[in-house]
Amino acid sequence: MRRIEDCIAGVVGADARAKEEAQRLQDILTKPQGSLGKLEALSVRLAGVYGTSKPSVGRKVVFTMAADHGVTQEGVSAYPAEVTRQMVLNFAHGGAAINVLARHVGAEVRVVDMGVSCDEDWPTCVICRKVGKGTRSMARGPAMTADEARRCVEAGIELAEMAVDEGFTALAIGDMGIGNTTAASAVTSVIAGKPVRDVTGRGTGIDDTKLNAKVSVIESAIRANSPDPRDGLDVLAKVGGFEIGGMAGVILGGAFRKVPVFVDGFVSGSAALVAGTMCPKSVDYMVASHLSVEPGHAHALAHLGLVPVLDLGMRLGEGTGAALAFSVADASCKILSEMATFEGAGVSRSSEKGS
Amino acid sequence: MRRIEDCIAGVVGADARAKEEAQRLQDILTKPQGSLGKLEALSVRLAGVYGTSKPSVGRKVVFTMAADHGVTQEGVSAYPAEVTRQMVLNFAHGGAAINVLARHVGAEVRVVDMGVSCDEDWPTCVICRKVGKGTRSMARGPAMTADEARRCVEAGIELAEMAVDEGFTALAIGDMGIGNTTAASAVTSVIAGKPVRDVTGRGTGIDDTKLNAKVSVIESAIRANSPDPRDGLDVLAKVGGFEIGGMAGVILGGAFRKVPVFVDGFVSGSAALVAGTMCPKSVDYMVASHLSVEPGHAHALAHLGLVPVLDLGMRLGEGTGAALAFSVADASCKILSEMATFEGAGVSRSSEKGS
Repeated sequence: MRRIEDCIAGVVGADARAKEEAQRLQDILTKPQGSLGKLEALSVRLAGVYGTSKPSVGRKVVFTMAADHGVTQEGVSAYPAEVTRQMVLNFAHGGAAINVLARHVGAEVRVVDMGVSCDEDWPTCVICRKVGKGTRSMARGPAMTADEARRCVEAGIELAEMAVDEGFTALAIGDMGIGNTTAASAVTSVIAGKPVRDVTGRGTGIDDTKLNAKVSVIESAIRANSPDPRDGLDVLAKVGGFEIGGMAGVILGGAFRKVPVFVDGFVSGSAALVAGTMCPKSVDYMVASHLSVEPGHAHALAHLGLVPVLDLGMRLGEGTGAALAFSVADASCKILSEMATFEGAGVSRSSEKGS
Repeated sequence: MRRIEDCIAGVVGADARAKEEAQRLQDILTKPQGSLGKLEALSVRLAGVYGTSKPSVGRKVVFTMAADHGVTQEGVSAYPAEVTRQMVLNFAHGGAAINVLARHVGAEVRVVDMGVSCDEDWPTCVICRKVGKGTRSMARGPAMTADEARRCVEAGIELAEMAVDEGFTALAIGDMGIGNTTAASAVTSVIAGKPVRDVTGRGTGIDDTKLNAKVSVIESAIRANSPDPRDGLDVLAKVGGFEIGGMAGVILGGAFRKVPVFVDGFVSGSAALVAGTMCPKSVDYMVASHLSVEPGHAHALAHLGLVPVLDLGMRLGEGTGAALAFSVADASCKILSEMATFEGAGVSRSSEKGS
């Protein structure tokens, strides 16, 4: 198992020269400059990740990481906690949204038990990296120990590296865990430095009363635990979750192995904040797949300097937005590889400078 | 050839019952209600088009319709007019963005010469429905005769029906024509009832001076020709374009044959305004693929009551946004067909009413 510190030390930033070359290529393809908008920007970003001006996304895998959250005992969710276990079985049987969307874009789904509150009698396709049977309630002390936080992240790094060793060239992270938008709001508030109220939403669908209670729980948990915003592992341990740590690890492992990690929505975004705090260079390897309806997500992305590819009004998690973004990324790379240039196709250029 | 009036008389609105059933199904799938955002809304819309609660998009074709515009002689575009012909050849050789993106989503591209200003010595794959060698300048009289306007629309209806007869079950429309954002702005201003300045943008990339000139040209063309905003064919004839008429025809033909027509961006959107004015029920069959950067597009969509699926900062045309939306539509239908229900998967429901 690679140590977290060794992984972080091995991450180098994106290839600036490949990005420049990809941008130059975009500018001579048979279309007005910039007219493919985010497709162009995404292709250039991926050129930097893969270190070539004609990148290809290739084989794709979504890590859907599940865990339970002790904070559900404070009444912060619309769904009972046993739904986490039930949904892991749904993933295993191929009936959840992420299964459908991953099939649609040709990606594999790897379901990981990072800390579901049940015994480990899973179907064989579920990868068990259980760090504990759910976190403790952050309202009553740290969600996990410092050692547990390290173990989550290390598990994520290991899974990312295993996937790359198997030939996967693009990773995605998604989440399942009743109560985990509470943890994500806490992490986002601390690391992005925003008031809890601004980064807390309705999750799976709570009413105003529960939303107010959720905000109070998070505020008092942050006060009581005082996580250090500059220390990603400390924030993860005190107010995070096992699946958040696992996803942060996948990002670090992906960045170490120079493959892009497609970050799904709000909970995955809080993992990106943890990873970005631990290893700022890892941000180069993140792709912000979509903008979640959860209000904290825009703050998380802004803190990381990331622009979301899609904006479809989604708020499901699981990696669903990342799966759809995989397809857009494929398309963006094919533009670079397959389109004709003005010169090659005998098409006249614009008479306007720079257009 | 089907007469326009017979086609319009044969269009019936979307199937309200299939839409209701699809919505009910969305609400019992294993996810919080509404959490897939626009994917859910799109699947319900397509259920109404296909008349079934489990629709499938099936075989897809993009009509990329090209024509020239006499108004280019007023200096409204950044590119020389011969680029229209050059780009048709680029489409025919598979080197344009629409070729790449259509291949990516498994759609066929049909390139149609609706009125390119050149002889007809095209490669065999180009479909020739040339109504004229470019329109006349709307600044100096009507862009085309009333008879020419009818012929464009009839050609589009015929092409749509031929495609459905061949087994295509989803159509898209896209445009190529130097100068055609000028025509689209004029059509949008007239039908949506918005000031020219608000619906006129930089097209392929003109500077401020040319933008001001473009606005003046459109304003005086509308004043001189006084098109009737309630008469789509009249607007098309006076300030439209041959490819805009062809695309309006594809919409009418698609609606008549009950298949969705994915409308691309701003110029296609002006065709949607023409079709919607001629046949309000045809709007049920339109899918607004994406939101163009061109400022008039949002006004056109608002007038039609359509919400765009994607928002990727694109402004290329050709059908590129529609191709990407095809893939999202496929995904949205698979959600309805392939996801497990709460009951089927043994997943507990929310404790909150209506979530």
